[in-house]
Amino acid sequence: MLSEVLLVSAPGKVILHGEHAVVHGKVALAVALNLRTFLRLQPHSSGKVCLNLPNIGVKRAWDVARLQLQDTSFLEQGDATAPTAEQVERLKEVAGFPEDGANPEHLAVLAFLYLYLSICGKQRWTVEDLELINKWAFQGERVIHGNPSGVDNAVSTWGGVIRFQQGKISSLKRPPALKILLTNTKVPRSTKALVASVRSRLLKFPEIVTPLLASINAISLECERMLGEMAASPALEHYLVLEELIDMNQHHLNALGVGHALLDQLCQVTMAHGLHSKLTGAGGGGCGITLLRPDLEQPEVEATKQALTDCGFDCWETSIGAPGISVHSAASLDAPVRQALVGL
Amino acid sequence: MLSEVLLVSAPGKVILHGEHAVVHGKVALAVALNLRTFLRLQPHSSGKVCLNLPNIGVKRAWDVARLQLQDTSFLEQGDATAPTAEQVERLKEVAGFPEDGANPEHLAVLAFLYLYLSICGKQRWTVEDLELINKWAFQGERVIHGNPSGVDNAVSTWGGVIRFQQGKISSLKRPPALKILLTNTKVPRSTKALVASVRSRLLKFPEIVTPLLASINAISLECERMLGEMAASPALEHYLVLEELIDMNQHHLNALGVGHALLDQLCQVTMAHGLHSKLTGAGGGGCGITLLRPDLEQPEVEATKQALTDCGFDCWETSIGAPGISVHSAASLDAPVRQALVGL
Repeated sequence: MLSEVLLVSAPGKVILHGEHAVVHGKVALAVALNLRTFLRLQPHSSGKVCLNLPNIGVKRAWDVARLQLQDTSFLEQGDATAPTAEQVERLKEVAGFPEDGANPEHLAVLAFLYLYLSICGKQRWTVEDLELINKWAFQGERVIHGNPSGVDNAVSTWGGVIRFQQGKISSLKRPPALKILLTNTKVPRSTKALVASVRSRLLKFPEIVTPLLASINAISLECERMLGEMAASPALEHYLVLEELIDMNQHHLNALGVGHALLDQLCQVTMAHGLHSKLTGAGGGGCGITLLRPDLEQPEVEATKQALTDCGFDCWETSIGAPGISVHSAASLDAPVRQALVGL
Repeated sequence: MLSEVLLVSAPGKVILHGEHAVVHGKVALAVALNLRTFLRLQPHSSGKVCLNLPNIGVKRAWDVARLQLQDTSFLEQGDATAPTAEQVERLKEVAGFPEDGANPEHLAVLAFLYLYLSICGKQRWTVEDLELINKWAFQGERVIHGNPSGVDNAVSTWGGVIRFQQGKISSLKRPPALKILLTNTKVPRSTKALVASVRSRLLKFPEIVTPLLASINAISLECERMLGEMAASPALEHYLVLEELIDMNQHHLNALGVGHALLDQLCQVTMAHGLHSKLTGAGGGGCGITLLRPDLEQPEVEATKQALTDCGFDCWETSIGAPGISVHSAASLDAPVRQALVGL
């Protein structure tokens, strides 16, 4: 058991380049986003396991003695293994969920229960063992997603920049941290429908779309090369190239048909402040990222954020290439994060 | 000499697909634009050759007897031959222009004089002889441009749709006439600088831009194929494909860096009316074309034109795939054209 409070965090993720093209075998770059999920693990003398996920309004508690009475021998404890459909069904019984319940809150609880019961069976958890954390995170993804790519857990575990292509995931050495704005247009979209629309455009116009995907692939590779150069000695010229790559890829994604009028507006608003943006992820709405060059003055950044907020968007100033899973002392945390964790 | 008034016209031109890519060996499609230049040839008993170009404010007259006194033997009369630099210099003397004068009005007068003196030497002009007209028109281009591609004269002579690639020019059989809006953003630009910027982007990012040019090439070929199908039996689906091609090429031209904020605005304004647009020609400002589907009601077209005019743009409703050089009877001309010609 833990003898004291443990504070850990893991970063979020955005796709820097290669969304959609990756579905067709091209390289994509995912980067750790310094908007972090914090976890406070705290020993209790109440004899209960309490799960509190304030962002999605989940608060549950299980009696440890009762959990131990449950037959959890169906979980193979030890090295991270994939949850089977049968295991997930039996976990629903343990959680007291209906069989057909698949809402996000239920799935989050199931992922927690699966990891808690599997990992606690071995009483094993070390922060150095990133490989193992990554494997378990992937199994948690499997509970929720069904068929995850493995990129989200990798980027949250390792941080920095993750390259992925045809199932092969690798981590860039010494990626630079880049300041960005992450802007949510709040336009809802279906990733599945957008991926299908790109596939149908590829089938309809193979001679047009195949070289377009090749061009996106080359953008990802050029970006990877540029980030590698920046590790040695970052210069303003590197940022200018990153801006050109962002612009070209944004036009390419529009040519693939996964743009949206509000994403165009996002790009235009930031361009009016001399800043370059692209959609990130599936497109058709959702989020965009805006690169903040190091020569920018803070008032200009604030003016851009205000202009984006005036469009009705949500906007966060953060960074990409952020650290992966991290242990924190309470004193090292920003006050708002510390307060939020204390308040739970 | 002509015994009566001869009215002829030739169409203008826009690039449908392939601008910039053509510089790098790809296919481009040029289409005859039904905004026509009209010419009235009228016999005079004044003993003068009068040239009146009202659009560019040129009005000149030469005494035929005096012209005949000039030594014009330096012009080789007969089949269309290329004007030499020396011939152009001697024509400047005939016209009484300064040696270093190269403004558009002077160049237009020189092109006229060159063609008048060369062609009248043989007293030969027939409308059937399109090949010869095309050759002479090309020589006129040479006087003005220096190094013309031959596309502008070809499209004005033959009309319809002209395909060109690496100096090879051919004419599409039975191209459909398509209704369009031609919109001038009035943003001045330098074609030379824009062509150079694409070349420098190609050199800087060859792996990204080479496939992009291949994709533009495929758009031109797909458009050519679609126009060929439309000759047999045009259907709404053909127009929908033409719209998709227009959108993709517009994004590609933006990715090449030859877009402009006002061209984006043009596209957005027409898109708000459900219509698809792209820049035409060098980009960086200049003109855009908007395809008008046959199912459009005229009030919707008028509303779009008004919205474009409200942006400060000039907008003409016209057609592409228009007839080439044509002879007209005065009665067949639209009243405004007839009046303009009579008023000269």
